[in-house]
Amino acid sequence: MGQSITFHKADQLKKKPDAGQLGFGKYFTDYMFEMDYTLEKGWHDPKIVPYGPISLDPAATIFHYGQEVFEGLKAYRAEDGRILLFRPNKNMERMNQSCARLNIPKIDEKFVVKAIKKLVAVEQDWIPNQPGQSLYIRPFIIGTDAALGVHPSSMYKLLIILSPVGSYFGNSMSPVKIYVEDEYVRAVKGGVGFAKTSGNYAASLKAQTKSEELGFDQVLWLDGVEHKYIEEVGSMNIFFKIDDEVWTPALNGSILPGVTRNSVIALLKHWGITVKEKRISVKKLFKKAEKQQLKEVFGTGTAAVISPVGFLKWEDHVIKVANGETGKLSKKLYDTLTGIQTGKQKDELGWTEEVKVEKEKVTE
Amino acid sequence: MGQSITFHKADQLKKKPDAGQLGFGKYFTDYMFEMDYTLEKGWHDPKIVPYGPISLDPAATIFHYGQEVFEGLKAYRAEDGRILLFRPNKNMERMNQSCARLNIPKIDEKFVVKAIKKLVAVEQDWIPNQPGQSLYIRPFIIGTDAALGVHPSSMYKLLIILSPVGSYFGNSMSPVKIYVEDEYVRAVKGGVGFAKTSGNYAASLKAQTKSEELGFDQVLWLDGVEHKYIEEVGSMNIFFKIDDEVWTPALNGSILPGVTRNSVIALLKHWGITVKEKRISVKKLFKKAEKQQLKEVFGTGTAAVISPVGFLKWEDHVIKVANGETGKLSKKLYDTLTGIQTGKQKDELGWTEEVKVEKEKVTE
Repeated sequence: MGQSITFHKADQLKKKPDAGQLGFGKYFTDYMFEMDYTLEKGWHDPKIVPYGPISLDPAATIFHYGQEVFEGLKAYRAEDGRILLFRPNKNMERMNQSCARLNIPKIDEKFVVKAIKKLVAVEQDWIPNQPGQSLYIRPFIIGTDAALGVHPSSMYKLLIILSPVGSYFGNSMSPVKIYVEDEYVRAVKGGVGFAKTSGNYAASLKAQTKSEELGFDQVLWLDGVEHKYIEEVGSMNIFFKIDDEVWTPALNGSILPGVTRNSVIALLKHWGITVKEKRISVKKLFKKAEKQQLKEVFGTGTAAVISPVGFLKWEDHVIKVANGETGKLSKKLYDTLTGIQTGKQKDELGWTEEVKVEKEKVTE
Repeated sequence: MGQSITFHKADQLKKKPDAGQLGFGKYFTDYMFEMDYTLEKGWHDPKIVPYGPISLDPAATIFHYGQEVFEGLKAYRAEDGRILLFRPNKNMERMNQSCARLNIPKIDEKFVVKAIKKLVAVEQDWIPNQPGQSLYIRPFIIGTDAALGVHPSSMYKLLIILSPVGSYFGNSMSPVKIYVEDEYVRAVKGGVGFAKTSGNYAASLKAQTKSEELGFDQVLWLDGVEHKYIEEVGSMNIFFKIDDEVWTPALNGSILPGVTRNSVIALLKHWGITVKEKRISVKKLFKKAEKQQLKEVFGTGTAAVISPVGFLKWEDHVIKVANGETGKLSKKLYDTLTGIQTGKQKDELGWTEEVKVEKEKVTE
């Protein structure tokens, strides 16, 4: 693409929130990145502008036919002051896979990584540096045609917004309670389950609120065909430590191919631990638990990184995992991943990319 | 609700498009209806305002987690000058069913019908009166919270926009070519297939463009579990005339409960024709065709009303239906439905509602 990114200075900057009350995705920084697509020009006019409302025709595709993809990644402030991104190329690669499924024109992956770096460089003062904190990066694309025929949009907007965040499930790494959902379905093979698109999340809300009403934190999704096989948990991938092996559902078309999932598998293999990506029936899992072979359960995702699971309920069966506490392997994975992400630990697998503020400088 | 709808006059009105070039959902009228929802106030501040862009925070729920529902209905100009709506209460009833699935707060159905009537009364000069033409009405609700945690939004906007339209598939009632999709899936039981929500349409685009590339007009969806049973066609419900009976897939949780579908079933029964809502395998359908028992195929929907199907392709099998022409029953249903809708034919089933302009008058 090689286009230069223009910069529009804000008249006034916001007061930054207290580090202690960040939560997740509640505060947004002073600037955002914006880029447009038309059939004639392709992706064009990349710019960093003051964060603010976007104005769309009420007939825009996004409001009616949901043509949308998004990504989530984080920028970390290392103890030595460096700014680190974690595998941004993997997110952009997945964004293009999502685009392909949703009939959205592809992005230039390298260019969008560059846009992320420039925006993060501009907003470097917004990167929080307490343990578990980071600057969450949310790129997303929406169809913007003002037309009601059911067709792929001919115009799109790509935006990147930034939010300083604490850890997703509050500040502790306390295990979550999971409910195996047997009524609602998140996705099915042939659908859009593998894509990071808004419709998957819209469809998940009902089961999520149901699980909260029942006193659980998250839902464990089963496959949409037989309601037998484990897919993912809430908006995370899921892993099970069975004796000395680690199992996780194989990517089958209806499961989101998580970047953290991919990283956990790589780390475990790097440590010499056997990882099996396979079809896992909930029945088999509960049998393993009965035989005391289920040692740990944890979810993986960009927002939570590693989220240990302490309780699992399926129909009338209840499992207390690792005595309801955080297992050793879950803890080691969390410490290692966050260690790499924040530059505290050696990045043996070459996953981090530094944002060099001087190099990414933008001018008006 | 009993709230009064305020009216904000536009400075200038648009030039109306030529009746001959309307197409579908390309032009929008001078005004739109808008209403907001907050946890504190519920649905409030209903107003008719000049049609124009809506301004949303880039973190709004609709852009990330797709919380959206919509409806589609039409206003017709009768020959005697009356303005008629077709079963608007059915659309509002379904909108609330969609809301329940998508965690969107319910609407006051009667109040929104009233809002539709007021808006249509204001825009009566926009109702086209050529055969096949009408004023398409699109109510929709979007979640607008500026927050990135995956949770139901606490704020919503309901909008109603209007578009003068011709017939959906061009001006003739010429039969369409249908391709039985065996790779992509639209919906599955436990998902959101029965709800009119944007994610279903986003998921359908890929198969639709594939069918167009293969030289077909629309896709026939099979069930997401076994890929054996017929669900719906494109964005319409589907009917088959088998000898003297009419079959249509039963509502199973993954099929949209169409208002036109419901009306067609009622009409056929009113005429003494046997209608069977049942599970129909594509194999059985093609067997029936082989035995010359498949007499007609047609899709039903608000946009197209009745859309005859002339060709069906499934794997290597091809069926030419009714010699590739519009069947008698399809034609009779189209004439009767559009006759009732436009006041030409007696409304024996009490389906139309008149918009009385004087009664619906709004003032600034």
